Amino acid sequence: MGMKWASILVLIQISCYFISGDCGKVLVWPTEYSHWINLKTILDELVQRGHEVTVLTSSASILVGPNGSSTIKFEVYPTSVTKDYFKNLFMKWITRWTYLPRDTFWTYFSELQESLREYSDCTKKFCEDAVLNKKLMTKLQESKFDLVLADAVGPCGRPTTMYELMGKAEMWFIRTYWDLEFPRPLLPHFEFIGGFHCKPAKPLPKEMEEFVQSSGEYGIVVFTLGSMVSNMTEEMTNLIASALAQIPQKVLWRFSGKKPDTLGPNTQLYKWIPQNDILGHPKTKAFITHGGANGIYEAIYHGIPMVGLPLFGDQFDNIAHMKARGAAVSLDIFTLTSTDLLNALKTVINDPSYKENAMKLSRINRDQPVKPLDRAVFWIEFIMRHKGAKHLRPAALNLTWAQYHSLDVIGFLLACAAIVTFLIMKCCLLGCQKFVKTGKKEKRQ
Amino acid sequence: MGMKWASILVLIQISCYFISGDCGKVLVWPTEYSHWINLKTILDELVQRGHEVTVLTSSASILVGPNGSSTIKFEVYPTSVTKDYFKNLFMKWITRWTYLPRDTFWTYFSELQESLREYSDCTKKFCEDAVLNKKLMTKLQESKFDLVLADAVGPCGRPTTMYELMGKAEMWFIRTYWDLEFPRPLLPHFEFIGGFHCKPAKPLPKEMEEFVQSSGEYGIVVFTLGSMVSNMTEEMTNLIASALAQIPQKVLWRFSGKKPDTLGPNTQLYKWIPQNDILGHPKTKAFITHGGANGIYEAIYHGIPMVGLPLFGDQFDNIAHMKARGAAVSLDIFTLTSTDLLNALKTVINDPSYKENAMKLSRINRDQPVKPLDRAVFWIEFIMRHKGAKHLRPAALNLTWAQYHSLDVIGFLLACAAIVTFLIMKCCLLGCQKFVKTGKKEKRQ
Repeated sequence: MGMKWASILVLIQISCYFISGDCGKVLVWPTEYSHWINLKTILDELVQRGHEVTVLTSSASILVGPNGSSTIKFEVYPTSVTKDYFKNLFMKWITRWTYLPRDTFWTYFSELQESLREYSDCTKKFCEDAVLNKKLMTKLQESKFDLVLADAVGPCGRPTTMYELMGKAEMWFIRTYWDLEFPRPLLPHFEFIGGFHCKPAKPLPKEMEEFVQSSGEYGIVVFTLGSMVSNMTEEMTNLIASALAQIPQKVLWRFSGKKPDTLGPNTQLYKWIPQNDILGHPKTKAFITHGGANGIYEAIYHGIPMVGLPLFGDQFDNIAHMKARGAAVSLDIFTLTSTDLLNALKTVINDPSYKENAMKLSRINRDQPVKPLDRAVFWIEFIMRHKGAKHLRPAALNLTWAQYHSLDVIGFLLACAAIVTFLIMKCCLLGCQKFVKTGKKEKRQ
Repeated sequence: MGMKWASILVLIQISCYFISGDCGKVLVWPTEYSHWINLKTILDELVQRGHEVTVLTSSASILVGPNGSSTIKFEVYPTSVTKDYFKNLFMKWITRWTYLPRDTFWTYFSELQESLREYSDCTKKFCEDAVLNKKLMTKLQESKFDLVLADAVGPCGRPTTMYELMGKAEMWFIRTYWDLEFPRPLLPHFEFIGGFHCKPAKPLPKEMEEFVQSSGEYGIVVFTLGSMVSNMTEEMTNLIASALAQIPQKVLWRFSGKKPDTLGPNTQLYKWIPQNDILGHPKTKAFITHGGANGIYEAIYHGIPMVGLPLFGDQFDNIAHMKARGAAVSLDIFTLTSTDLLNALKTVINDPSYKENAMKLSRINRDQPVKPLDRAVFWIEFIMRHKGAKHLRPAALNLTWAQYHSLDVIGFLLACAAIVTFLIMKCCLLGCQKFVKTGKKEKRQ
């Protein structure tokens, strides 16, 4: 299917207690960081529509947990993994993925695989701690949930394959849309809901708004590297800061490390920024991004051209797509120079085609028969109402690998051909022998 | 794509005068009979939403033309083909297709191809009469249409292939949905809008309602063979009538031929029936249908089990799908006996699984995020607003057949391999020759 692993949410229907018109009970198996931030938008909407949402999470969870006024329930089960270990695991993984030289393919690949193994072991541990917790399991079983909403990046249920997992889900939500994806065939139980978390910008905090307004007609540039990357080498931050110091725009940089020496007076550092609200501000001219799906979609939604600094995962792919659409310039973190960044910013800000293309993507994303979030909620409710969505499920998912590729049929036909060939040859041989014998007899006579 | 030819409408964007918020100008290139009846639903909706709809049709058109209070415009151009010739062409085609024995494949196939050639010649004539009509062409060009809505069954634009035609359309509307279709991969510029013409039943004419009510708790059976089939052999009608006479239900039979001798007192013949309103009547128990897409979808919408008597085209396929869904019994018109029809009717009426399955399909069709007609209108307006839907268009459509199958790449690689093999062999030969010469020299010494 060529599906990006980092872009999937999956719906699995587990029981059948939902009665049309009533509200359903949803059990959620989430993963961390941007995936959780993203998923929470759907959960909040479900809660607002009267559904009961229970998130199953371990005591080691990093971002997953109660926050603000939401009435999402959290079922926290104890695990021997500590929060610090789990957090460090992610950081180690990301650092390896981002900074390992990519020119020695085998080293890069084996180190990445090692990280992936560590992560898998950890999610397996979480899974065991949940499944072997009898009290928890009894409580969940008694809750009679109508549906499980699971992030496929953290599977739980024994070793499985992507193919088997795909076959079990009633519906797949993909966190992109045809503004980013290149059109390709898809199955009817795939819903592309990219941008479902985007909404019109709210006013900025007073101090931030004053800084933004001080940019005058030049406007501002927004710079973040997402929820997982918080530190960079000092050399890198100085390089970036010196480039930013040379543009006439004001810059809002989300960065929690040491203040770079080369930081210009036009650049303000923030530990956190209301990313969607800033990207939706009329003064925003460009967005420097690592290319995570959430940020990319906020930029698409508000029609902001991008400078991409992809670090790991699907970010390279996302930025490549934005570049192909003429809405982004892509840079390589390994070979990055101040001049590269400066030129890239000048290009996306001053060449009007980048703004035009970004606005085109924005219009495409905003002009759909049903908003992506409403589509996601519709199908969650549909699956609860109808006890599944079997009418969208391709029959191919019930076939084994050999059946899917018609190996059983081909094998049978080959066997038939072999038997027929064997019989024909046998007959010929027998015929020949008889002919030879007759010949000999005739000779003797 | 495995697309059914009888199920397609296509949108082609031709010019760019539509301004968001304004109303657009749509040019329509329709085909006859059920395709027109179907398409008119979309046109009426477009007119109601303030768009200007002009239907381009020849003076020989059969059903296409002004009807009732609709404000669709008709641009009728003269053609040398007469209405009678065109109508007979269809009837001959249908009769051949339906009644030719299917056991002699080559006769069947060549007769069908002959009919198809006659039909193609006729549509080509219509096309020439339109395109070579300078006055008409000038008028159309001056009208500055925003979009062409064309039925792909009657292409006009020089000899073309299905593949080329598919590549030219911005969007394809398929007259089915996943209640009928088996789930399979699709491209994002395909919208499955099956059932878009269905609506809640209106009250029946007084006399018809009285007949329906007289059925008591047994209810009624509805029987039509669509807009193209109006006559059958006397033997066939007697066979059908005698089966219908044996059921306790009352039967409404749309039939304009000679009254069969075996017609029972429970069966009423009608030249025309309000099919959607009768299928939506609470007393309707079963629908005997040829399996045309329009009738099938009215039955799906109202959850009525079917007895299928497929005659030609996609009807075999449609009925097979309904049979696979457990909502229909399929019969063969060639081997049909009274008992077959009687048993089939008893089965779909008395076995509750047929009603349950039909109701399941009805629920699937009615439970969509956006109604099919609204989806069709949305994408028509989208294409006018955005001057196309390029973001849904797969890049593969720009490739030639050889490029699509990577024959150019494979060819290049094979050529490289051939050159390398040739060079290696040449080197080996030279090496051998040198070795042999050296050996000879040594021998001589």
